Amino acid sequence: MEIKSYMARIGQQAREASARMAKADTATKNRALMFIAEAIRRDVALLRTANRKDLDIAQDNGLEPSLLDRLTLSDKAIETMATGLEQIASLSDPIGEITNLRLRPSGIQVGQMRVPLGVIGIIYEARPNVTVDAAGLCIKSGNATILRGGSEAINCNQVLASLVKEGLKKAGLPEQAVQVVETTDRAAVGELITMSEYVDVIVPRGGKGLIERLMRESTIPMIKHLDGICHVYIDDCADLEKAVEIAFNAKCQRYGTCNTMETLLVSKNVALEALSLLARRYHDEEVELRCDEKAYQILFEYPYLARATEADWETEYLAPILAVRVVNNLDEAITHINRYSSKHTDAIITENYSHALRFLREVDSSSVMVNASTRFADGFEYGLGAEIGISNDKLHARGPVGLEGLTSLKYVVLGHGEIRK
Amino acid sequence: MEIKSYMARIGQQAREASARMAKADTATKNRALMFIAEAIRRDVALLRTANRKDLDIAQDNGLEPSLLDRLTLSDKAIETMATGLEQIASLSDPIGEITNLRLRPSGIQVGQMRVPLGVIGIIYEARPNVTVDAAGLCIKSGNATILRGGSEAINCNQVLASLVKEGLKKAGLPEQAVQVVETTDRAAVGELITMSEYVDVIVPRGGKGLIERLMRESTIPMIKHLDGICHVYIDDCADLEKAVEIAFNAKCQRYGTCNTMETLLVSKNVALEALSLLARRYHDEEVELRCDEKAYQILFEYPYLARATEADWETEYLAPILAVRVVNNLDEAITHINRYSSKHTDAIITENYSHALRFLREVDSSSVMVNASTRFADGFEYGLGAEIGISNDKLHARGPVGLEGLTSLKYVVLGHGEIRK
Repeated sequence: MEIKSYMARIGQQAREASARMAKADTATKNRALMFIAEAIRRDVALLRTANRKDLDIAQDNGLEPSLLDRLTLSDKAIETMATGLEQIASLSDPIGEITNLRLRPSGIQVGQMRVPLGVIGIIYEARPNVTVDAAGLCIKSGNATILRGGSEAINCNQVLASLVKEGLKKAGLPEQAVQVVETTDRAAVGELITMSEYVDVIVPRGGKGLIERLMRESTIPMIKHLDGICHVYIDDCADLEKAVEIAFNAKCQRYGTCNTMETLLVSKNVALEALSLLARRYHDEEVELRCDEKAYQILFEYPYLARATEADWETEYLAPILAVRVVNNLDEAITHINRYSSKHTDAIITENYSHALRFLREVDSSSVMVNASTRFADGFEYGLGAEIGISNDKLHARGPVGLEGLTSLKYVVLGHGEIRK
Repeated sequence: MEIKSYMARIGQQAREASARMAKADTATKNRALMFIAEAIRRDVALLRTANRKDLDIAQDNGLEPSLLDRLTLSDKAIETMATGLEQIASLSDPIGEITNLRLRPSGIQVGQMRVPLGVIGIIYEARPNVTVDAAGLCIKSGNATILRGGSEAINCNQVLASLVKEGLKKAGLPEQAVQVVETTDRAAVGELITMSEYVDVIVPRGGKGLIERLMRESTIPMIKHLDGICHVYIDDCADLEKAVEIAFNAKCQRYGTCNTMETLLVSKNVALEALSLLARRYHDEEVELRCDEKAYQILFEYPYLARATEADWETEYLAPILAVRVVNNLDEAITHINRYSSKHTDAIITENYSHALRFLREVDSSSVMVNASTRFADGFEYGLGAEIGISNDKLHARGPVGLEGLTSLKYVVLGHGEIRK
């Protein structure tokens, strides 16, 4: 009950702050971002101390090394947070922009104005930098936000929260536009994802376990993706040099990201050559190849070889493992992708114009690519300037989500006294 | 269990058909629409007979006159259905359009392609024309659709469904792109709104009771509005001639529509004159005025006068009744609207430039208007060409929803062999 009323108060305050944020002008919002960046740089020592406290507790609790690594706030990471805020300040303000103003036969002019969503709830794991990135994006897009970070980062997040509030206040914006949930009680998340009177959208950032739990329990719409089972299809009309570079990059440039390729499809007409070339590259990285029968026959001498089972087509490895399948043609590739893809990012490698167009049109994923690495599916690479997350859903924002994904459109009608006949 | 498997089969068929619809070219989709229009005109007699059957049953069941009226399919209504399809055919095809293709520093080109949502479930009451309108919009936007109309119209809907299927087949499109649920069992609705593996979005069309029930039970996102509590605010800088015309039109042009004004706000500086002028107009239509204290003092001689209670600010009358409140200024008007409005449509009447801009920016509704009747909030009036419904929500489509609201965007990346560095 205490948590319930605590969260309701936070929700109410956020709702109130969101009305003031929606009206705030661009210069004021940018000033707040710059003040926060300034405060972060000033208080590096304070942040390091708070982070040290979090790390000590985490070590005592036996946290995994990879999580400790994410939790660590180096001087460089702190500077990156400050720079990130300056970048967000330099982006153009989407709010208030009116587009498509058209004169109608009745005499009225009808257009659409971009407006904030309202209150954004962000739930993330032990990465303190998300606190600042998310706060920055929400401030710029005129939203209020409620941040619930991993309990492991609570000390650091509280310091960051105070710096954000300082910046907001100095700029004349409501401090409660950004609130960090200050309890590590898990029940707080349960409240956050069900108090639909105060929260308009939830953005979860974290592993599949977190997202699945939130999907089951949230009554508020989410901007999210569950996983990234991304495909590269090497077409029979592929330039094999490009194909090898892209298929290597898409798998090996980073294993742990959601836009990493997890399944490689190869047209049977080029399978022998393409797989032989690729095997040499993957060999250096000791990538395990889990192959269907035809690919297995071609790669039988490859040392890190395994047979693929049905489960492999549905697995996001996030590791040096790749599922490989030989397909008869483009149709089979598209069918495979539309069945097994997590609708994140899929690419075709081809020089054939019609194949490229068909792939773009018929693959039902949030990003479809021709002759480019799936690793490009990213807000910065797409030119959004920043990224709050990636959505695999079809409603509202889809693909990498930047400032615009935190906004909505309303119709504006400019009349001169018109009435409906 | 039988209903469950019946609905699952329909869902599966819709999902399969949606993949073919997504690929269909514009000419083919338009041909299907024209064939359906042709079949409707050919089978007017058949439709009248089926409608007669529905009406007889409805009369035996003692259906209200207003519902009988909606259920009735006149020759004119049948012709309007056919014309509606021709209009949809004449709209430009949103699907496949690529916008914002921009070259990025990495060398890739990034744009967005408009794509269908997939499978749309439409739930409506006893209005047979919705069957054809909704089918037409879904066909044009490359979606498959499952239609569940009111059980009172089942005979008529079955004939319409067969005509739609005939048109689809003749054009070479999958007949199962449009399926009418052929059972009147209410459990079918329960299935439709929870089979998220087959249905991407639900569009409910009907009264508040229907929508509320669906909101409680649906696990699939909806494009919907619950009610229309629309406001007109007569500012102290209003041209009173325009104000009177608009406030009269917004209330009296039609009582039963969601974009009808339900509350009139008047600035205290012009209240005496504006309300006196308006009372003469409302008097002719015997509109009951439910007034706050200040308005009551001004209108004390008006014959259809009542005192407003808190509940009146939250009521959608759909009748010749109007809540009236005198406010001190623009701020108070905006505060009242943002508190009580159903976020459908709200208008200001003013000649003051700054007041107009502030109202447009600060009123948080799906349509905001200056010097125009709220009755203009409509897909046809806005130039969308057609309307599947109106959404008061902020995610995805907002305001009147046309073809574009039945679509999504995906990112397309055109590369030349680029890899991520």
